[in-house]
Amino acid sequence: MNEMNKEQTENIQPGSFEESKVEGRNPVLEAFRSGRTVDKLYVLDGCQDGPVRTIIREAKKHDTKIQFVAKERLDQLSETKHHQGVIAVCAAYHYAQVEDILENARKKGEAPFIFILDGISDPHNLGAIIRTANQAGAHGVIIPKNRAVGLTPTVAKTSAGALNYTPVAKVTNIGKTIDELKKEGIWFVCADMGGETMYRLNLTGPIGLVLGSEGEGVSRLVREKCDFTASIPMFGDIDSLNASVAAGVLAYEIVRQRIGGRY
Amino acid sequence: MNEMNKEQTENIQPGSFEESKVEGRNPVLEAFRSGRTVDKLYVLDGCQDGPVRTIIREAKKHDTKIQFVAKERLDQLSETKHHQGVIAVCAAYHYAQVEDILENARKKGEAPFIFILDGISDPHNLGAIIRTANQAGAHGVIIPKNRAVGLTPTVAKTSAGALNYTPVAKVTNIGKTIDELKKEGIWFVCADMGGETMYRLNLTGPIGLVLGSEGEGVSRLVREKCDFTASIPMFGDIDSLNASVAAGVLAYEIVRQRIGGRY
Repeated sequence: MNEMNKEQTENIQPGSFEESKVEGRNPVLEAFRSGRTVDKLYVLDGCQDGPVRTIIREAKKHDTKIQFVAKERLDQLSETKHHQGVIAVCAAYHYAQVEDILENARKKGEAPFIFILDGISDPHNLGAIIRTANQAGAHGVIIPKNRAVGLTPTVAKTSAGALNYTPVAKVTNIGKTIDELKKEGIWFVCADMGGETMYRLNLTGPIGLVLGSEGEGVSRLVREKCDFTASIPMFGDIDSLNASVAAGVLAYEIVRQRIGGRY
Repeated sequence: MNEMNKEQTENIQPGSFEESKVEGRNPVLEAFRSGRTVDKLYVLDGCQDGPVRTIIREAKKHDTKIQFVAKERLDQLSETKHHQGVIAVCAAYHYAQVEDILENARKKGEAPFIFILDGISDPHNLGAIIRTANQAGAHGVIIPKNRAVGLTPTVAKTSAGALNYTPVAKVTNIGKTIDELKKEGIWFVCADMGGETMYRLNLTGPIGLVLGSEGEGVSRLVREKCDFTASIPMFGDIDSLNASVAAGVLAYEIVRQRIGGRY
Protein backbone atom coordinates (compact mmCIF):
# COMPACT_ATOMS: atom_id res chain seq x y z
CA MET A 1 0.00 0.00 0.00
CA ASN A 2 2.87 2.34 0.87
CA GLU A 3 4.69 1.23 -2.23
CA MET A 4 1.61 2.03 -4.28
CA ASN A 5 1.17 5.49 -2.83
CA LYS A 6 4.82 6.21 -3.31
CA GLU A 7 4.69 5.31 -6.95
CA GLN A 8 1.61 7.38 -7.58
CA THR A 9 3.30 10.40 -6.11
CA GLU A 10 6.32 9.87 -8.28
CA ASN A 11 4.49 9.54 -11.52
CA ILE A 12 1.59 11.87 -11.23
CA GLN A 13 2.01 15.52 -10.40
CA PRO A 14 0.00 16.49 -7.34
CA GLY A 15 -2.85 18.69 -8.42
CA SER A 16 -2.79 17.42 -11.98
CA PHE A 17 -4.72 14.22 -11.16
CA GLU A 18 -7.86 15.74 -12.62
CA GLU A 19 -6.53 16.05 -16.12
CA SER A 20 -3.78 13.55 -16.57
CA LYS A 21 -5.44 10.15 -16.96
CA VAL A 22 -7.14 8.62 -19.96
CA GLU A 23 -9.19 5.51 -19.20
CA GLY A 24 -10.83 2.85 -21.32
CA ARG A 25 -9.76 1.10 -24.50
CA ASN A 26 -10.94 3.44 -27.21
CA PRO A 27 -9.88 6.63 -25.39
CA VAL A 28 -6.40 5.19 -24.66
CA LEU A 29 -5.96 4.01 -28.24
CA GLU A 30 -7.12 7.39 -29.53
CA ALA A 31 -4.66 9.15 -27.22
CA PHE A 32 -1.78 7.23 -28.81
CA ARG A 33 -3.01 7.59 -32.38
CA SER A 34 -3.66 11.30 -32.09
CA GLY A 35 -0.08 11.87 -31.02
CA ARG A 36 -0.68 12.86 -27.39
CA THR A 37 2.24 12.34 -25.05
CA VAL A 38 1.48 9.29 -22.91
CA ASP A 39 3.87 9.19 -19.97
CA LYS A 40 2.90 5.74 -18.77
CA LEU A 41 0.47 2.96 -19.54
CA TYR A 42 -1.13 0.75 -16.88
CA VAL A 43 -2.50 -2.54 -18.18
CA LEU A 44 -4.51 -5.17 -16.29
CA ASP A 45 -2.18 -8.07 -15.65
CA GLY A 46 -3.10 -11.12 -17.75
CA CYS A 47 -5.30 -9.16 -20.09
CA GLN A 48 -4.33 -10.34 -23.57
CA ASP A 49 -7.26 -9.77 -25.90
CA GLY A 50 -6.99 -8.09 -29.29
CA PRO A 51 -7.77 -4.47 -28.33
CA VAL A 52 -5.35 -4.57 -25.39
CA ARG A 53 -2.61 -6.09 -27.57
CA THR A 54 -3.17 -3.27 -30.09
CA ILE A 55 -2.78 -0.71 -27.30
CA ILE A 56 0.43 -2.37 -26.07
CA ARG A 57 1.80 -2.33 -29.62
CA GLU A 58 1.10 1.41 -29.85
CA ALA A 59 2.73 1.99 -26.47
CA LYS A 60 5.88 0.16 -27.61
CA LYS A 61 5.93 2.13 -30.83
CA HIS A 62 5.90 5.34 -28.77
CA ASP A 63 8.42 4.08 -26.19
CA THR A 64 5.81 4.45 -23.47
CA LYS A 65 6.62 2.75 -20.17
CA ILE A 66 4.15 -0.10 -19.63
CA GLN A 67 3.26 -1.47 -16.22
CA PHE A 68 1.12 -4.56 -15.70
CA VAL A 69 -0.91 -4.28 -12.52
CA ALA A 70 -3.59 -6.18 -10.58
CA LYS A 71 -7.26 -5.25 -10.90
CA GLU A 72 -7.36 -3.71 -7.41
CA ARG A 73 -4.51 -1.38 -8.35
CA LEU A 74 -6.16 -0.33 -11.57
CA ASP A 75 -9.50 0.23 -9.81
CA GLN A 76 -7.71 2.42 -7.30
CA LEU A 77 -6.03 4.48 -10.00
CA SER A 78 -9.27 4.82 -11.97
CA GLU A 79 -11.36 7.95 -11.67
CA THR A 80 -14.09 7.01 -14.09
CA LYS A 81 -14.40 3.44 -12.75
CA HIS A 82 -14.66 2.23 -16.33
CA HIS A 83 -11.01 1.65 -17.19
CA GLN A 84 -11.65 -1.58 -19.17
CA GLY A 85 -8.20 -2.79 -18.18
CA VAL A 86 -6.15 0.17 -19.41
CA ILE A 87 -5.23 3.57 -17.99
CA ALA A 88 -2.84 5.96 -19.71
CA VAL A 89 -1.16 8.73 -17.73
CA CYS A 90 -0.90 11.63 -20.14
CA ALA A 91 0.23 15.17 -20.29
CA ALA A 92 -2.83 17.12 -19.14
CA TYR A 93 -5.31 18.13 -21.80
CA HIS A 94 -4.40 21.55 -22.90
CA TYR A 95 -7.07 24.04 -23.75
CA ALA A 96 -7.01 25.61 -27.17
CA GLN A 97 -7.37 29.31 -27.93
CA VAL A 98 -10.41 30.63 -29.76
CA GLU A 99 -7.98 31.57 -32.54
CA ASP A 100 -7.04 27.87 -32.93
CA ILE A 101 -10.68 27.08 -33.64
CA LEU A 102 -10.88 29.73 -36.36
CA GLU A 103 -7.58 28.50 -37.79
CA ASN A 104 -8.99 24.95 -37.86
CA ALA A 105 -11.88 26.18 -40.04
CA ARG A 106 -9.52 28.20 -42.26
CA LYS A 107 -7.23 25.21 -42.82
CA LYS A 108 -10.20 23.11 -43.93
CA GLY A 109 -11.49 25.90 -46.14
CA GLU A 110 -14.87 25.80 -44.40
CA ALA A 111 -17.15 28.43 -42.90
CA PRO A 112 -16.60 28.30 -39.13
CA PHE A 113 -18.97 26.06 -37.13
CA ILE A 114 -18.45 26.46 -33.39
CA PHE A 115 -20.26 25.09 -30.33
CA ILE A 116 -20.56 27.54 -27.42
CA LEU A 117 -21.60 25.85 -24.17
CA ASP A 118 -22.96 28.30 -21.64
CA GLY A 119 -22.57 26.28 -18.46
CA ILE A 120 -22.84 22.51 -19.05
CA SER A 121 -22.25 21.00 -15.60
CA ASP A 122 -22.47 17.24 -16.22
CA PRO A 123 -19.19 15.74 -17.48
CA HIS A 124 -21.07 13.01 -19.39
CA ASN A 125 -23.02 15.67 -21.26
CA LEU A 126 -19.87 17.69 -21.98
CA GLY A 127 -18.07 14.59 -23.28
CA ALA A 128 -21.00 13.54 -25.46
CA ILE A 129 -21.30 17.09 -26.85
CA ILE A 130 -17.59 17.24 -27.75
CA ARG A 131 -18.05 13.86 -29.46
CA THR A 132 -21.01 15.25 -31.40
CA ALA A 133 -19.10 18.44 -32.30
CA ASN A 134 -16.34 16.29 -33.76
CA GLN A 135 -18.73 14.12 -35.81
CA ALA A 136 -20.83 17.03 -37.01
CA GLY A 137 -17.70 18.61 -38.44
CA ALA A 138 -17.60 21.55 -36.01
CA HIS A 139 -14.23 23.30 -35.70
CA GLY A 140 -14.19 23.64 -31.94
CA VAL A 141 -16.01 24.02 -28.66
CA ILE A 142 -15.97 27.03 -26.34
CA ILE A 143 -16.72 26.65 -22.63
CA PRO A 144 -16.74 29.22 -19.82
CA LYS A 145 -14.13 29.31 -17.06
CA ASN A 146 -16.77 29.48 -14.34
CA ARG A 147 -20.08 27.70 -13.66
CA ALA A 148 -19.15 24.71 -15.79
CA VAL A 149 -17.28 21.43 -15.82
CA GLY A 150 -13.77 21.37 -17.33
CA LEU A 151 -11.90 18.63 -19.19
CA THR A 152 -11.89 15.86 -16.59
CA PRO A 153 -11.12 12.18 -17.29
CA THR A 154 -14.87 11.46 -17.38
CA VAL A 155 -15.26 14.08 -20.10
CA ALA A 156 -12.35 12.56 -22.01
CA LYS A 157 -13.82 9.07 -21.75
CA THR A 158 -17.35 10.12 -22.71
CA SER A 159 -15.96 12.06 -25.67
CA ALA A 160 -14.75 8.69 -27.04
CA GLY A 161 -11.48 10.22 -28.16
CA ALA A 162 -12.94 13.36 -29.72
CA LEU A 163 -11.12 15.50 -27.16
CA ASN A 164 -7.89 14.62 -28.95
CA TYR A 165 -9.10 16.14 -32.19
CA THR A 166 -11.64 18.85 -31.47
CA PRO A 167 -10.12 21.98 -29.88
CA VAL A 168 -11.82 23.13 -26.69
CA ALA A 169 -11.24 26.73 -25.59
CA LYS A 170 -12.06 28.06 -22.13
CA VAL A 171 -13.01 31.73 -21.96
CA THR A 172 -13.69 34.14 -19.10
CA ASN A 173 -16.71 35.81 -20.64
CA ILE A 174 -18.90 34.05 -23.20
CA GLY A 175 -20.70 37.26 -24.15
CA LYS A 176 -17.47 39.07 -24.91
CA THR A 177 -16.20 36.12 -26.96
CA ILE A 178 -19.41 36.20 -29.01
CA ASP A 179 -18.90 39.91 -29.66
CA GLU A 180 -15.37 39.26 -30.89
CA LEU A 181 -16.45 36.36 -33.11
CA LYS A 182 -19.19 38.48 -34.65
CA LYS A 183 -16.43 40.70 -36.03
CA GLU A 184 -15.22 37.58 -37.89
CA GLY A 185 -18.60 37.36 -39.59
CA ILE A 186 -20.00 34.54 -37.46
CA TRP A 187 -23.75 34.40 -36.75
CA PHE A 188 -24.99 33.06 -33.45
CA VAL A 189 -27.99 30.84 -32.93
CA CYS A 190 -29.15 30.22 -29.40
CA ALA A 191 -31.00 27.05 -28.38
CA ASP A 192 -34.13 28.13 -26.56
CA MET A 193 -37.58 26.62 -26.22
CA GLY A 194 -39.18 29.95 -27.02
CA GLY A 195 -37.34 30.29 -30.34
CA GLU A 196 -38.37 29.73 -33.93
CA THR A 197 -38.56 26.06 -35.00
CA MET A 198 -35.05 25.16 -36.16
CA TYR A 199 -36.25 23.81 -39.51
CA ARG A 200 -37.50 27.29 -40.47
CA LEU A 201 -34.25 29.15 -39.78
CA ASN A 202 -31.41 29.66 -42.22
CA LEU A 203 -28.52 28.03 -40.40
CA THR A 204 -25.97 28.04 -43.22
CA GLY A 205 -22.76 30.06 -43.32
CA PRO A 206 -20.35 30.83 -40.45
CA ILE A 207 -22.27 29.82 -37.32
CA GLY A 208 -21.97 29.55 -33.55
CA LEU A 209 -24.42 27.19 -31.84
CA VAL A 210 -25.03 28.42 -28.30
CA LEU A 211 -26.29 25.80 -25.84
CA GLY A 212 -27.31 26.42 -22.24
CA SER A 213 -26.88 24.54 -19.00
CA GLU A 214 -28.93 21.44 -18.17
CA GLY A 215 -31.29 23.17 -15.79
CA GLU A 216 -31.41 26.81 -16.77
CA GLY A 217 -30.80 27.00 -20.50
CA VAL A 218 -28.80 29.86 -21.99
CA SER A 219 -28.35 32.82 -19.61
CA ARG A 220 -30.18 36.02 -20.50
CA LEU A 221 -27.05 38.08 -21.17
CA VAL A 222 -25.69 35.49 -23.59
CA ARG A 223 -29.07 34.95 -25.24
CA GLU A 224 -29.38 38.66 -25.96
CA LYS A 225 -26.08 38.56 -27.86
CA CYS A 226 -27.39 35.92 -30.26
CA ASP A 227 -28.78 36.68 -33.70
CA PHE A 228 -31.52 34.02 -33.64
CA THR A 229 -33.06 31.62 -31.19
CA ALA A 230 -33.89 28.14 -32.44
CA SER A 231 -36.17 25.59 -30.84
CA ILE A 232 -36.57 21.87 -31.30
CA PRO A 233 -40.22 20.95 -31.85
CA MET A 234 -41.45 18.89 -28.90
CA PHE A 235 -44.61 16.83 -28.81
CA GLY A 236 -44.16 15.18 -25.44
CA ASP A 237 -45.53 15.35 -21.94
CA ILE A 238 -42.33 16.37 -20.19
CA ASP A 239 -40.15 19.48 -20.12
CA SER A 240 -37.15 19.01 -22.33
CA LEU A 241 -34.61 16.73 -23.95
CA ASN A 242 -31.33 15.60 -22.40
CA ALA A 243 -28.76 18.39 -22.99
CA SER A 244 -26.44 16.28 -25.14
CA VAL A 245 -29.35 14.91 -27.20
CA ALA A 246 -30.66 18.46 -27.79
CA ALA A 247 -27.15 19.53 -28.82
CA GLY A 248 -27.01 16.65 -31.31
CA VAL A 249 -30.42 17.37 -32.79
CA LEU A 250 -29.63 21.08 -33.30
CA ALA A 251 -26.11 20.41 -34.58
CA TYR A 252 -27.42 17.98 -37.18
CA GLU A 253 -30.04 20.43 -38.40
CA ILE A 254 -27.10 22.77 -39.02
CA VAL A 255 -25.27 19.91 -40.77
CA ARG A 256 -28.29 19.18 -42.96
CA GLN A 257 -28.48 22.79 -44.07
CA ARG A 258 -24.70 23.15 -44.52
CA ILE A 259 -24.31 20.10 -46.72
CA GLY A 260 -27.42 21.00 -48.73
CA GLY A 261 -28.05 17.57 -50.24
CA ARG A 262 -24.38 16.90 -51.00
CA TYR A 263 -24.35 13.56 -49.11
CA MET B 1 -28.80 0.82 11.90
CA ASN B 2 -30.86 -2.23 12.80
CA GLU B 3 -33.97 -0.09 12.92
CA MET B 4 -33.16 1.15 9.46
CA ASN B 5 -32.69 -2.31 8.02
CA LYS B 6 -35.86 -3.50 9.63
CA GLU B 7 -37.92 -0.74 8.12
CA GLN B 8 -36.50 -1.31 4.68
CA THR B 9 -37.51 -4.93 4.83
CA GLU B 10 -41.00 -4.00 5.90
CA ASN B 11 -41.61 -1.43 3.23
CA ILE B 12 -39.87 -2.71 0.18
CA GLN B 13 -40.52 -6.14 -1.23
CA PRO B 14 -37.35 -8.16 -1.49
CA GLY B 15 -36.49 -8.64 -5.11
CA SER B 16 -38.53 -5.67 -6.23
CA PHE B 17 -35.82 -3.13 -5.34
CA GLU B 18 -34.85 -2.89 -8.98
CA GLU B 19 -38.09 -1.47 -10.17
CA SER B 20 -39.84 0.14 -7.26
CA LYS B 21 -38.07 3.42 -6.55
CA VAL B 22 -38.34 6.76 -8.27
CA GLU B 23 -35.65 9.27 -7.30
CA GLY B 24 -35.16 12.97 -7.87
CA ARG B 25 -37.59 15.88 -7.87
CA ASN B 26 -38.90 15.92 -11.41
CA PRO B 27 -39.24 12.13 -11.66
CA VAL B 28 -41.09 11.95 -8.30
CA LEU B 29 -43.40 14.81 -9.22
CA GLU B 30 -44.06 13.23 -12.61
CA ALA B 31 -44.86 9.92 -10.89
CA PHE B 32 -47.60 11.59 -8.83
CA ARG B 33 -48.98 13.67 -11.68
CA SER B 34 -49.14 10.79 -14.12
CA GLY B 35 -51.26 8.83 -11.67
CA ARG B 36 -48.77 6.13 -10.71
CA THR B 37 -49.36 4.44 -7.40
CA VAL B 38 -46.79 5.77 -4.93
CA ASP B 39 -46.71 3.56 -1.86
CA LYS B 40 -44.47 5.79 0.22
CA LEU B 41 -42.51 9.01 -0.05
CA TYR B 42 -39.16 9.61 1.66
CA VAL B 43 -38.22 13.27 2.07
CA LEU B 44 -34.98 14.74 3.36
CA ASP B 45 -35.66 16.06 6.85
CA GLY B 46 -35.63 19.86 6.97
CA CYS B 47 -35.88 20.23 3.20
CA GLN B 48 -38.53 22.91 2.66
CA ASP B 49 -37.93 24.54 -0.69
CA GLY B 50 -40.61 25.08 -3.31
CA PRO B 51 -40.23 21.92 -5.41
CA VAL B 52 -40.19 19.71 -2.30
CA ARG B 53 -43.27 21.45 -0.87
CA THR B 54 -45.03 20.82 -4.19
CA ILE B 55 -44.15 17.14 -3.99
CA ILE B 56 -45.41 16.92 -0.40
CA ARG B 57 -48.68 18.58 -1.44
CA GLU B 58 -49.09 15.98 -4.22
CA ALA B 59 -48.34 13.19 -1.76
CA LYS B 60 -51.00 14.46 0.66
CA LYS B 61 -53.51 14.75 -2.16
CA HIS B 62 -52.89 11.10 -3.00
CA ASP B 63 -52.88 9.95 0.66
CA THR B 64 -49.31 8.75 0.27
CA LYS B 65 -47.47 7.99 3.50
CA ILE B 66 -44.64 10.52 3.95
CA GLN B 67 -41.54 9.87 5.99
CA PHE B 68 -38.92 12.52 6.77
CA VAL B 69 -35.46 10.99 7.04
CA ALA B 70 -31.84 12.03 7.51
CA LYS B 71 -29.49 12.43 4.55
CA GLU B 72 -27.56 9.24 5.40
CA ARG B 73 -30.78 7.25 5.32
CA LEU B 74 -31.81 8.69 1.97
CA ASP B 75 -28.35 8.08 0.51
CA GLN B 76 -28.56 4.50 1.66
CA LEU B 77 -31.98 3.99 0.08
CA SER B 78 -30.90 5.65 -3.15
CA GLU B 79 -29.85 3.59 -6.13
CA THR B 80 -29.11 6.40 -8.53
CA LYS B 81 -27.25 8.49 -5.90
CA HIS B 82 -29.04 11.55 -7.26
CA HIS B 83 -32.17 11.58 -5.12
CA GLN B 84 -32.22 15.38 -4.64
CA GLY B 85 -33.93 14.89 -1.30
CA VAL B 86 -36.87 12.76 -2.43
CA ILE B 87 -37.42 9.08 -3.10
CA ALA B 88 -40.81 7.60 -3.94
CA VAL B 89 -41.43 3.90 -3.51
CA CYS B 90 -43.79 2.95 -6.31
CA ALA B 91 -45.53 -0.01 -7.75
CA ALA B 92 -43.01 -1.41 -10.23
CA TYR B 93 -43.12 0.03 -13.73
CA HIS B 94 -45.33 -2.15 -15.78
CA TYR B 95 -44.40 -2.95 -19.32
CA ALA B 96 -46.90 -2.19 -22.03
CA GLN B 97 -47.94 -4.53 -24.83
CA VAL B 98 -47.05 -3.81 -28.45
CA GLU B 99 -50.79 -3.46 -29.04
CA ASP B 100 -50.89 -0.57 -26.50
CA ILE B 101 -48.37 1.29 -28.63
CA LEU B 102 -50.47 0.86 -31.78
CA GLU B 103 -53.57 1.90 -29.85
CA ASN B 104 -51.71 5.02 -28.66
CA ALA B 105 -51.11 6.01 -32.30
CA ARG B 106 -54.72 5.22 -33.26
CA LYS B 107 -56.12 7.33 -30.42
CA LYS B 108 -54.04 10.29 -31.59
CA GLY B 109 -55.05 9.72 -35.21
CA GLU B 110 -51.38 9.53 -36.24
CA ALA B 111 -49.34 7.14 -38.36
CA PRO B 112 -47.45 4.90 -35.90
CA PHE B 113 -43.92 6.01 -34.96
CA ILE B 114 -42.15 3.40 -32.85
CA PHE B 115 -38.61 3.10 -31.49
CA ILE B 116 -37.19 -0.44 -31.53
CA LEU B 117 -34.04 -0.79 -29.42
CA ASP B 118 -32.02 -3.87 -30.31
CA GLY B 119 -29.95 -4.25 -27.16
CA ILE B 120 -29.21 -0.91 -25.44
CA SER B 121 -27.23 -1.88 -22.34
CA ASP B 122 -26.57 1.46 -20.61
CA PRO B 123 -29.48 2.62 -18.43
CA HIS B 124 -28.58 6.29 -19.00
CA ASN B 125 -28.84 5.76 -22.75
CA LEU B 126 -32.14 3.87 -22.40
CA GLY B 127 -33.59 6.63 -20.21
CA ALA B 128 -32.43 9.40 -22.55
CA ILE B 129 -33.86 7.52 -25.55
CA ILE B 130 -37.27 7.07 -23.88
CA ARG B 131 -37.19 10.81 -23.11
CA THR B 132 -36.42 11.54 -26.77
CA ALA B 133 -39.15 9.16 -27.96
CA ASN B 134 -41.65 11.05 -25.81
CA GLN B 135 -40.56 14.48 -27.11
CA ALA B 136 -40.35 13.39 -30.73
CA GLY B 137 -43.97 12.29 -30.52
CA ALA B 138 -43.25 8.57 -30.88
CA HIS B 139 -46.03 6.25 -29.69
CA GLY B 140 -43.87 3.78 -27.83
CA VAL B 141 -40.59 1.97 -27.39
CA ILE B 142 -39.92 -1.73 -27.86
CA ILE B 143 -37.00 -3.42 -26.09
CA PRO B 144 -35.88 -7.06 -26.08
CA LYS B 145 -36.22 -9.36 -23.06
CA ASN B 146 -32.60 -10.44 -23.29
CA ARG B 147 -29.25 -8.71 -23.88
CA ALA B 148 -30.55 -5.35 -22.72
CA VAL B 149 -31.24 -3.22 -19.69
CA GLY B 150 -34.81 -3.09 -18.33
CA LEU B 151 -36.73 -0.31 -16.63
CA THR B 152 -34.53 0.34 -13.58
CA PRO B 153 -34.67 3.45 -11.36
CA THR B 154 -31.72 4.92 -13.26
CA VAL B 155 -33.68 4.55 -16.50
CA ALA B 156 -36.70 6.17 -14.87
CA LYS B 157 -34.64 9.08 -13.58
CA THR B 158 -32.77 9.62 -16.86
CA SER B 159 -36.06 9.53 -18.74
CA ALA B 160 -37.05 12.66 -16.76
CA GLY B 161 -40.56 11.37 -16.28
CA ALA B 162 -41.11 10.19 -19.87
CA LEU B 163 -41.43 6.61 -18.63
CA ASN B 164 -44.78 7.59 -17.11
CA TYR B 165 -46.16 8.58 -20.49
CA THR B 166 -44.42 6.64 -23.23
CA PRO B 167 -45.34 2.94 -23.27
CA VAL B 168 -42.37 0.55 -23.26
CA ALA B 169 -43.00 -3.03 -24.41
CA LYS B 170 -40.59 -5.89 -23.82
CA VAL B 171 -40.61 -8.64 -26.46
CA THR B 172 -38.90 -12.01 -26.73
CA ASN B 173 -37.93 -11.72 -30.36
CA ILE B 174 -37.38 -8.33 -32.03
CA GLY B 175 -37.33 -9.88 -35.52
CA LYS B 176 -40.68 -11.59 -35.03
CA THR B 177 -42.19 -8.38 -33.65
CA ILE B 178 -41.00 -6.50 -36.74
CA ASP B 179 -42.65 -9.14 -38.96
CA GLU B 180 -45.93 -8.70 -37.10
CA LEU B 181 -45.79 -4.92 -37.26
CA LYS B 182 -45.10 -5.04 -41.01
CA LYS B 183 -48.57 -6.58 -41.37
CA GLU B 184 -49.89 -3.35 -39.82
CA GLY B 185 -48.28 -1.41 -42.67
CA ILE B 186 -45.28 -0.14 -40.71
CA TRP B 187 -41.97 0.40 -42.51
CA PHE B 188 -38.70 -0.20 -40.69
CA VAL B 189 -35.59 1.91 -40.93
CA CYS B 190 -32.44 0.60 -39.36
CA ALA B 191 -29.69 2.88 -38.06
CA ASP B 192 -26.45 1.70 -39.61
CA MET B 193 -23.27 3.48 -40.61
CA GLY B 194 -23.30 1.70 -43.96
CA GLY B 195 -26.77 2.97 -44.84
CA GLU B 196 -28.04 5.76 -47.09
CA THR B 197 -27.68 9.27 -45.64
CA MET B 198 -30.85 9.84 -43.61
CA TYR B 199 -31.65 13.13 -45.37
CA ARG B 200 -32.08 11.27 -48.66
CA LEU B 201 -34.56 8.68 -47.43
CA ASN B 202 -38.32 9.06 -47.33
CA LEU B 203 -39.06 8.58 -43.64
CA THR B 204 -42.70 9.65 -43.64
CA GLY B 205 -45.68 7.40 -42.91
CA PRO B 206 -45.95 4.58 -40.37
CA ILE B 207 -42.39 3.96 -39.24
CA GLY B 208 -40.29 1.90 -36.87
CA LEU B 209 -36.83 3.31 -36.05
CA VAL B 210 -34.50 0.40 -35.22
CA LEU B 211 -31.46 1.29 -33.12
CA GLY B 212 -28.64 -1.05 -32.14
CA SER B 213 -26.56 -1.58 -29.05
CA GLU B 214 -23.79 0.82 -28.03
CA GLY B 215 -20.96 -1.40 -29.18
CA GLU B 216 -22.30 -3.62 -31.90
CA GLY B 217 -25.07 -1.73 -33.65
CA VAL B 218 -28.14 -3.54 -34.92
CA SER B 219 -27.73 -7.32 -35.10
CA ARG B 220 -27.61 -8.88 -38.55
CA LEU B 221 -30.88 -10.80 -38.23
CA VAL B 222 -32.78 -7.70 -37.19
CA ARG B 223 -31.08 -5.53 -39.83
CA GLU B 224 -32.13 -7.93 -42.56
CA LYS B 225 -35.77 -7.50 -41.54
CA CYS B 226 -35.61 -3.74 -42.09
CA ASP B 227 -36.80 -1.98 -45.24
CA PHE B 228 -34.07 0.68 -45.30
CA THR B 229 -30.86 1.46 -43.51
CA ALA B 230 -30.18 5.08 -42.64
CA SER B 231 -26.88 6.65 -41.66
CA ILE B 232 -26.00 9.91 -39.98
CA PRO B 233 -23.33 11.79 -41.95
CA MET B 234 -20.14 11.94 -39.88
CA PHE B 235 -17.22 14.22 -40.55
CA GLY B 236 -15.14 13.44 -37.48
CA ASP B 237 -12.01 11.56 -36.54
CA ILE B 238 -13.62 9.02 -34.24
CA ASP B 239 -15.96 6.06 -34.70
CA SER B 240 -19.48 7.03 -33.81
CA LEU B 241 -21.89 9.16 -31.81
CA ASN B 242 -23.18 8.39 -28.34
CA ALA B 243 -26.14 5.96 -28.73
CA SER B 244 -28.73 8.32 -27.26
CA VAL B 245 -27.44 11.26 -29.33
CA ALA B 246 -27.61 9.15 -32.51
CA ALA B 247 -31.16 8.11 -31.58
CA GLY B 248 -32.11 11.77 -31.15
CA VAL B 249 -30.57 12.86 -34.44
CA LEU B 250 -32.33 10.09 -36.40
CA ALA B 251 -35.64 10.56 -34.58
CA TYR B 252 -35.65 14.27 -35.37
CA GLU B 253 -34.94 13.68 -39.04
CA ILE B 254 -38.10 11.54 -38.96
CA VAL B 255 -39.90 14.37 -37.12
CA ARG B 256 -38.75 16.92 -39.72
CA GLN B 257 -40.11 14.80 -42.54
CA ARG B 258 -43.33 13.92 -40.71
CA ILE B 259 -44.27 17.50 -39.90
CA GLY B 260 -43.31 18.67 -43.40
CA GLY B 261 -42.94 22.36 -42.60
CA ARG B 262 -46.04 22.52 -40.40
CA TYR B 263 -44.15 23.98 -37.39
